[in-house]
Amino acid sequence: MDATTLPPDLRVAVVGVGVMGADHVERLATRTKFARVSVVNDFDTAKASRLAGTVPGCRAVEDPFEAITADDVDAVLLASPGRFHAEQVLAALEIGRPVLCEKPLALDPADALQVVRREAEHGSPLVSVGFMRRFDREHEELRASLAAGELGTPLMVHCKHRNASVPGHFDDRMMVYDSAVHEVDSVRYLLGEEIVSASVLKPTPSENAPAGLHDPMLVLFRTASGRVVTDELHLTTSAGYEVRTEVVGSRGSATIGLEVGRLTTQLPGGRWGGSVHADFRPRFRDAYDVQLQRWVDAVRRGEGVDPTSATAWDGYAAAVVCEATARALDTDGAPVPVELATRPPGPSSDHHEEQR
Amino acid sequence: MDATTLPPDLRVAVVGVGVMGADHVERLATRTKFARVSVVNDFDTAKASRLAGTVPGCRAVEDPFEAITADDVDAVLLASPGRFHAEQVLAALEIGRPVLCEKPLALDPADALQVVRREAEHGSPLVSVGFMRRFDREHEELRASLAAGELGTPLMVHCKHRNASVPGHFDDRMMVYDSAVHEVDSVRYLLGEEIVSASVLKPTPSENAPAGLHDPMLVLFRTASGRVVTDELHLTTSAGYEVRTEVVGSRGSATIGLEVGRLTTQLPGGRWGGSVHADFRPRFRDAYDVQLQRWVDAVRRGEGVDPTSATAWDGYAAAVVCEATARALDTDGAPVPVELATRPPGPSSDHHEEQR
Amino acid sequence: MDATTLPPDLRVAVVGVGVMGADHVERLATRTKFARVSVVNDFDTAKASRLAGTVPGCRAVEDPFEAITADDVDAVLLASPGRFHAEQVLAALEIGRPVLCEKPLALDPADALQVVRREAEHGSPLVSVGFMRRFDREHEELRASLAAGELGTPLMVHCKHRNASVPGHFDDRMMVYDSAVHEVDSVRYLLGEEIVSASVLKPTPSENAPAGLHDPMLVLFRTASGRVVTDELHLTTSAGYEVRTEVVGSRGSATIGLEVGRLTTQLPGGRWGGSVHADFRPRFRDAYDVQLQRWVDAVRRGEGVDPTSATAWDGYAAAVVCEATARALDTDGAPVPVELATRPPGPSSDHHEEQR
Amino acid sequence: MDATTLPPDLRVAVVGVGVMGADHVERLATRTKFARVSVVNDFDTAKASRLAGTVPGCRAVEDPFEAITADDVDAVLLASPGRFHAEQVLAALEIGRPVLCEKPLALDPADALQVVRREAEHGSPLVSVGFMRRFDREHEELRASLAAGELGTPLMVHCKHRNASVPGHFDDRMMVYDSAVHEVDSVRYLLGEEIVSASVLKPTPSENAPAGLHDPMLVLFRTASGRVVTDELHLTTSAGYEVRTEVVGSRGSATIGLEVGRLTTQLPGGRWGGSVHADFRPRFRDAYDVQLQRWVDAVRRGEGVDPTSATAWDGYAAAVVCEATARALDTDGAPVPVELATRPPGPSSDHHEEQR
Repeated sequence: MDATTLPPDLRVAVVGVGVMGADHVERLATRTKFARVSVVNDFDTAKASRLAGTVPGCRAVEDPFEAITADDVDAVLLASPGRFHAEQVLAALEIGRPVLCEKPLALDPADALQVVRREAEHGSPLVSVGFMRRFDREHEELRASLAAGELGTPLMVHCKHRNASVPGHFDDRMMVYDSAVHEVDSVRYLLGEEIVSASVLKPTPSENAPAGLHDPMLVLFRTASGRVVTDELHLTTSAGYEVRTEVVGSRGSATIGLEVGRLTTQLPGGRWGGSVHADFRPRFRDAYDVQLQRWVDAVRRGEGVDPTSATAWDGYAAAVVCEATARALDTDGAPVPVELATRPPGPSSDHHEEQR
Repeated sequence: MDATTLPPDLRVAVVGVGVMGADHVERLATRTKFARVSVVNDFDTAKASRLAGTVPGCRAVEDPFEAITADDVDAVLLASPGRFHAEQVLAALEIGRPVLCEKPLALDPADALQVVRREAEHGSPLVSVGFMRRFDREHEELRASLAAGELGTPLMVHCKHRNASVPGHFDDRMMVYDSAVHEVDSVRYLLGEEIVSASVLKPTPSENAPAGLHDPMLVLFRTASGRVVTDELHLTTSAGYEVRTEVVGSRGSATIGLEVGRLTTQLPGGRWGGSVHADFRPRFRDAYDVQLQRWVDAVRRGEGVDPTSATAWDGYAAAVVCEATARALDTDGAPVPVELATRPPGPSSDHHEEQR
Repeated sequence: MDATTLPPDLRVAVVGVGVMGADHVERLATRTKFARVSVVNDFDTAKASRLAGTVPGCRAVEDPFEAITADDVDAVLLASPGRFHAEQVLAALEIGRPVLCEKPLALDPADALQVVRREAEHGSPLVSVGFMRRFDREHEELRASLAAGELGTPLMVHCKHRNASVPGHFDDRMMVYDSAVHEVDSVRYLLGEEIVSASVLKPTPSENAPAGLHDPMLVLFRTASGRVVTDELHLTTSAGYEVRTEVVGSRGSATIGLEVGRLTTQLPGGRWGGSVHADFRPRFRDAYDVQLQRWVDAVRRGEGVDPTSATAWDGYAAAVVCEATARALDTDGAPVPVELATRPPGPSSDHHEEQR
Repeated sequence: MDATTLPPDLRVAVVGVGVMGADHVERLATRTKFARVSVVNDFDTAKASRLAGTVPGCRAVEDPFEAITADDVDAVLLASPGRFHAEQVLAALEIGRPVLCEKPLALDPADALQVVRREAEHGSPLVSVGFMRRFDREHEELRASLAAGELGTPLMVHCKHRNASVPGHFDDRMMVYDSAVHEVDSVRYLLGEEIVSASVLKPTPSENAPAGLHDPMLVLFRTASGRVVTDELHLTTSAGYEVRTEVVGSRGSATIGLEVGRLTTQLPGGRWGGSVHADFRPRFRDAYDVQLQRWVDAVRRGEGVDPTSATAWDGYAAAVVCEATARALDTDGAPVPVELATRPPGPSSDHHEEQR
């Protein structure tokens, strides 16, 4: 990167702005550095127009292929219904345009294979598929732990995928294509090898399951090297969203997604546990990021400070308390009073009061 | 915000580019949306120049006040040594420029009070202080829980602040001004009231403590409404960084920072526990953010895909496995083989191989 | 029970005094109230004789059937090799003598069925089988939770059974008959219904597994009402002994045997957690039992006190500290010194010193 | 112990049969091996008589000193009100009789000291004080961990003592003498040294606290070697009974009494966690004990089996399932049906049905 010039932001077309697509538009427009949304498209053209009106520099177009191939677009994010994905990806490939495609790449393996082949002919990679667990910190840590051999040889994987509820029209095939598909990618990502067979056990359904849905369901996979994977799909728990993955290895096992902790490992010597943060940066990395983003956003809105931030008064109070505490270092346990000045009226206290 | 024009990014001057300041520069330059670093300054001018050379559109200046008042600066981030903070904040206030000041605002309460008063005279808030715990998700959740009355009336707070080690020159006053200062703000933020007295108990020091340092140390605060706060400072544990805060209320108590879970609460009825995520969005919010940022960064680098992302081949493999699994819905538990096509040579497989 | 007379202790014959049998002898002789061991028997007659010599009122006999039918025996505990169990149980049934038989009741189902039928002909129950998990507090709590409907309808059960290592001659059948057999009973006990089919998946074995052993192994059961059970057997983890059972119900799921907690439940409303003890009795029930047993044992040995118990000096010190603390109630935080008298030389301090 | 004769059971007099004393009578009469209750006494003579009528071989007497000195008594357990303890212990000492005295030994330190001196004159230890936490497994493990140096030098101790509620007449002094007294002994037991000063901080009371009670309360102790102890007393949580103790050492810290786990330790290298059981014996020790005691009790009642035990039918079912599972070892994942014989009518199924 040339340090003397600022390259322009990436102009992204988002195709499909339902729940997931609108979420991506919001993300690109407000959190993703170096990107902006230049074009949106949806089957519901009114919705696309309304959304475009809220995003600076964004327009709506009526034809998805127009969005994909528009001149003011550098890259394409596909959040349209899955059955259109393959055709739309191919359109982007045709003009050599990078595309991030929400899962699935295609419902029909033949269509997906066509995408693979076209991309191979193109000569350089252009297609990303949105299996976002690969970017989840817990999944990354588990994969790193496996790569480092901390668990020895992986032997089995136990997955759980639970939702509070599903729409009434949800059917067994959707349990596979919408839910189990995530475990398919997780297992391939974690183990680095292909799945070679699948089977399904259907327990008596829960009374919460819509008529005809076999919920919960147990999917079993075997991998190329002979590993066994269990995947419990349970989509009507009434409780919430739980994604747990346990890799059982010859030297230890590790679980992610447990509400009671991030990573528990059975290690030789009979210990279990996790890791303490090395220092304050990994512990509060997200807090620093959020603090800075909110400050930038507030200042750009002309507000000077973010209302949740510590203020000058907070800084003053901290100075007074620390000064009293420092004096208490020499009083053998006797308390030292803290005395604050009268707080001046004005803007600082105003936004402070709003906050409290 | 006018949806038809893109407002320019915020131009930030970063004063002080030691460990913390350089961290902020990196954050502003690569992760914070709508911001860029236009000016950097440091006592070590060579270091500032080197850093400026790596950031597009950034220059180094030799005088901190020049950085603070420069024309190509919209807002100022202070990461200089604490003893310079008050004077530098005042310089920004003088010209009505927003400033985010790393803690402390000042060592001397009189200096901090002067900042408070100047800001009040200015008529609108401009000063933020970098107590970043306020932006930590656990702290936010705990504060929201308190605000919602879930714990009843807060009665006591127990804090623990532990580091693996400190430099040899660390002294008791630094334990107060660098460590306990964070609990001072946490307690004020969580309880929404002022601290009225402080006392210190000094146990026999750990054998790990540098000569003369009273580590661990127990600081006790009382608040305006009569609450009691304990703060264990323990900076030479050899283990790592642990920040735990327990609020004891009349209806329950909650702890954050436990490695074994995010939020445990003792509730009437004798239950303890935490919350399950409502759905996939809070669970994988960060993963979606990271995915999108890495994709944007890779495409802008001209690489088409991020190497850790799922590829077209991954999308194809998922389609094949799902198709086999869907067939297994009707085989009463018998396995259905998964058959993948031969993978084409080419770019997709190349970056795939690198990754595995 | 007639309150005016003390009924005699139960005289038990223990057949088989290997590791498990010797453990039972020790338990009966030192911890089980109202019982004593009157006869022991083992194939290794020297071992039986040595053991009998250490137990008051106990004799060894060379023939297991002599032990089972002896006049000075009220009940029989069988810890002999499993292949002898059915025949030995039948011998006890023949004379109407109660028998507690270590698992398995028989290896051959036909033999076990014969025992069931003989007992039925006898007209009152006499045979207990040593599936001891039924007496484990966690299992009892989980069963009570299921019985109370707290988890709704049970849908699936996930079991894990892990050992650090197994002897070199361990084979796949032993994984079934020695390990999975416990889950067979747990599942029947927890669900209250029969298992109707079993299947086995054999992943590629761990490098820790003895040659020929398929470790780990995944056993799958289906029950009469259509529930599905997974049972991971993993006997060469190098780590230790872990027994975990998760029942997945339509209203919540609960796991026992997690090292990080006793019972976690996903409940409607999205909470997870466990229960706090109602008061000090369940929390310290075991401590009170142990305290009293050790005191009785010490006094019967003529030692007056148990060396781990609190002494008169400890009681004195507590009185002094409490008295100082009570005075500190009125000193507004100022410390009150604790002043102990000189400790008299003598027996109390002697055993105290040993202890420290 | 002479292996050829059975020494008689210890005859215990229990003085005071309120809640705690009656609990001890039940324990001695039904769970403590080698002991029986020969005499009971209470201020409420009717209550003592009723209780004696339920215990074989037990009589009630009207005078506590008659109970303490009776000929058919070998040892004395005092559960009378604390203000009588010292006098009653002295009476037992007078005749050289071992005594287990519930806490406190005395309210007045001078009385406690007199007991210490009399016991010293007696020449051998006779007095035990009922600080039962010393017999709690978690406390024992923590003390052993300290003794082994696993935590380095102990530096601070943090105690929490919480109850759901207290009677309306509870006052601040009772918080010290009834609650904090347990931490006084725990700290002395764990650290092996004396407490040298005490102070008390009283936060604004909880709205749950009876009028006049300062609940919660923070007690601070310092020990002879300079360690600092915090003790949070909180007796009106509405939640339940929680006793937590954290020892902070120079090499690690460990907490017991956390509902989320038994022992968490911060260790050099930045790991936290606990230990897995070495094998099935420590894991299921209690289950084996309970199983055997219930079997002995049932057989002595003439019932042949305990109703919660596994039966012959359970043993049969296990044999059938294992046999099917063993066949499934060779069917490559295909299920093998389990076929049970018709269950014979009769006693075994009868008690089984009761149970389910």
